[in-house]
Amino acid sequence: MIEVKHQKELEKIVGSENFYNDKAHLIAYCYDATKERYEPDCIIYPRNESDVSKILKYCNTHKISVLPRGGGSGFTGGALPVNGGVVLAMEKHFNQILEIDEKNLIARVQPAVINKHFQEVVEKIGLFYPPDPASQEYCTLGGNVSENAGGMRAAKYGITKDYVMAIRAVLPNGEIIRAGKKTIKDVAGYNVAGILIASEGSLAVITEITLKLIAKPKISKSAMGVFSDIQSAMNAVYKTMAGGVTPVAMEFLDNLSIRAVEEKFHKNLPIEAGAILITQVDGDIPEQIKWQLEKIQEKFTENGCIDFKIAQSKEEEENLWFARRNASQSITVYGKKKLNEDITVPRSRLPELLEKISIVSKKYGFKIPCFGHTGDGNVHTNVMVPDDKDEEQLKRGHQAIEEIFKIAIELEGTLSGEHGIGLSKAPFMSLAFTPAEMELFRSIKRAFDPNNILNTGKMGL
Amino acid sequence: MIEVKHQKELEKIVGSENFYNDKAHLIAYCYDATKERYEPDCIIYPRNESDVSKILKYCNTHKISVLPRGGGSGFTGGALPVNGGVVLAMEKHFNQILEIDEKNLIARVQPAVINKHFQEVVEKIGLFYPPDPASQEYCTLGGNVSENAGGMRAAKYGITKDYVMAIRAVLPNGEIIRAGKKTIKDVAGYNVAGILIASEGSLAVITEITLKLIAKPKISKSAMGVFSDIQSAMNAVYKTMAGGVTPVAMEFLDNLSIRAVEEKFHKNLPIEAGAILITQVDGDIPEQIKWQLEKIQEKFTENGCIDFKIAQSKEEEENLWFARRNASQSITVYGKKKLNEDITVPRSRLPELLEKISIVSKKYGFKIPCFGHTGDGNVHTNVMVPDDKDEEQLKRGHQAIEEIFKIAIELEGTLSGEHGIGLSKAPFMSLAFTPAEMELFRSIKRAFDPNNILNTGKMGL
Repeated sequence: MIEVKHQKELEKIVGSENFYNDKAHLIAYCYDATKERYEPDCIIYPRNESDVSKILKYCNTHKISVLPRGGGSGFTGGALPVNGGVVLAMEKHFNQILEIDEKNLIARVQPAVINKHFQEVVEKIGLFYPPDPASQEYCTLGGNVSENAGGMRAAKYGITKDYVMAIRAVLPNGEIIRAGKKTIKDVAGYNVAGILIASEGSLAVITEITLKLIAKPKISKSAMGVFSDIQSAMNAVYKTMAGGVTPVAMEFLDNLSIRAVEEKFHKNLPIEAGAILITQVDGDIPEQIKWQLEKIQEKFTENGCIDFKIAQSKEEEENLWFARRNASQSITVYGKKKLNEDITVPRSRLPELLEKISIVSKKYGFKIPCFGHTGDGNVHTNVMVPDDKDEEQLKRGHQAIEEIFKIAIELEGTLSGEHGIGLSKAPFMSLAFTPAEMELFRSIKRAFDPNNILNTGKMGL
Repeated sequence: MIEVKHQKELEKIVGSENFYNDKAHLIAYCYDATKERYEPDCIIYPRNESDVSKILKYCNTHKISVLPRGGGSGFTGGALPVNGGVVLAMEKHFNQILEIDEKNLIARVQPAVINKHFQEVVEKIGLFYPPDPASQEYCTLGGNVSENAGGMRAAKYGITKDYVMAIRAVLPNGEIIRAGKKTIKDVAGYNVAGILIASEGSLAVITEITLKLIAKPKISKSAMGVFSDIQSAMNAVYKTMAGGVTPVAMEFLDNLSIRAVEEKFHKNLPIEAGAILITQVDGDIPEQIKWQLEKIQEKFTENGCIDFKIAQSKEEEENLWFARRNASQSITVYGKKKLNEDITVPRSRLPELLEKISIVSKKYGFKIPCFGHTGDGNVHTNVMVPDDKDEEQLKRGHQAIEEIFKIAIELEGTLSGEHGIGLSKAPFMSLAFTPAEMELFRSIKRAFDPNNILNTGKMGL
């Protein structure tokens, strides 16, 4: 609990119209997409970088917890103020696109710009910002950097880190730093921007981001492959990509996910299929599209694809992607509580991964529908617990999740492909990291934040 | 000077066949591409990761400087043991390609594998590792990671950091850590691999690198554009790339560089040209190549290109690239001492940059031939000092360099695009970084290396 005198001082920095500690505000900022709740002591809307600096300096001196918050759309509790303190809400005064430099294919943005809005603005002038997390309609670019967000297009275009050229940030001691440059190459000094990416708001408060853009490919086309069993589909994924074609996206739905979407939306999906793969290719000339689709069809067919359909119109394309986009909400038919994880493995281990998940499903008696970004080995694994009031069921659900984490790591994969660690995955860090590695993380944290004020109690540190 | 008793202990760890302190060895390891010389106290060839761990632990306890060394081909003194101590020479026992995982397009290598050798091995099986620093025939992949090496193909394919998926390394305290995964997406824990890249051997000793590969494009073609003045050429560069075509490489030679190559090799180059641009495009189908070359020719012509030639055979292609590859050695006709820097600016600032360099050239009376990677804004700027024995001339040469650094930074550029800071650029760090940023670098250094034993006295820390 922040003492009243400190709250008064913080209020003075930003003015009363940017400082709130009334119940309505505390409740509005106590949650994120995990639906867990922790109330902060106050909400501050910093007006500018200088405010951020003053707030951090004050809080650092008085050891007050500060949580920088973007869209609050994270799945792992990264935006939950577990130790109370200040929520630094960036959305009010840090939501501007500062510059789109068409000459250099670069944009400068404030951290609370919404991903989708940014995409639309740059696409209007023929440019392209590929990272497209599923929450793109409400997640912020600052949050994307802090979590190193991925999305469907990562197979070809990479993830947020591949587009961050520079970051301006405020350190816990109030010092303003710039890291990186508007240049593709820059090797002067340590790669501070690199370590701020995916640091979940625990090292510094980001106040400006310089992003790389690319020219928007002129044409794209989508296709769907139907497979009788999931192993064949997973083989098709990695063999296609190892075969020299790199689609923008290579997404999958397993049988449970297909059935759930069909039950809810009646889209005429192949409900007997073991899995479907939905893929998109892009390029600048029609021959490139044709070549890629032929290659994909060839590899799919070699690996047991029983039906391959290329979308012939915008509408058909929309229909293909509808199933993928609505999988997450549809699978709730299998249980009231969804324990949703985003494990990732090297693509060639996908067949084993899905095989082992089906064993976990049988062992615990939970349905575990899977879908996601197979093009980069990232599988959204959903343990569906029928009754969210049954403690025993929930406990077994979490045990199933822990087994799945262990499987992912055994298969050279990771706890999290794109959601981060935050609070939810913190207990599992020791599965993935040695004590020496955890100690190094803590040393890095201390180097930036010696008084431990920024997003405290996260990442298992 | 390391005490004899410590040298004996270190020798015990690796055996006498891997420990040397005789004059011949000390001399062999006292230099790098800067040609400056600092003798170490001993050379150790660690046999494996466990040796590295034991050596570091011992040296950390006794505060002995340790310098991990790759190919010694760096241009900024990164491999010079300025404080004596141990040179950890990796080339003898850490030179193996451990795995090429064709299913996932990934390779695992030891740090002393030579860049060019690695490229050849992966290309034989249809794969491709793009980063191609000019020193590729003798530089090592570990050195490439430590300096975040670039090269000619960065315009399209990015630089070393874009290919590093994971790193195994030994911390100064002897602890072995793994950072990153064999997965495209991984957001568990801080991005330690990201900060090790470009850390110039000052944070940890790299023992294994996991690199991303891509499928080798099936076709490539090169072309040359001749421009009457350098401003037009620089405009053509950024307008081409902003126009939606991304060539593999977009290299330039200014008039001085063209004349120097012609004088030395008689290749029938256009010696009256203000600049030439040499470019390469690649792809999987002929139509893609044709489309890109047409786009480039169109943009070049719009921006004052007076002659555009597409290489029609392998031999013609070789000829085009010959001039670029031999520019560095040819320009020595202009002076005995070459002060060679690798400043980088956003592409659209190239016209101003070259304009301002010509003013510096006139002011100091030195020829400053420029060539390099304009596709990513990286210009190799060479202040040619006629007499390398004349202290006054050398001093003025260094003043000219300092002015050029200031110009680069003014134009939103960087001190170093790919060579690193090391020793040579350390005095200029304060031009590019604030005291708060320098202090953050020192905090990061302390987090990894609290006793300051690794590559000490570098990067202005």
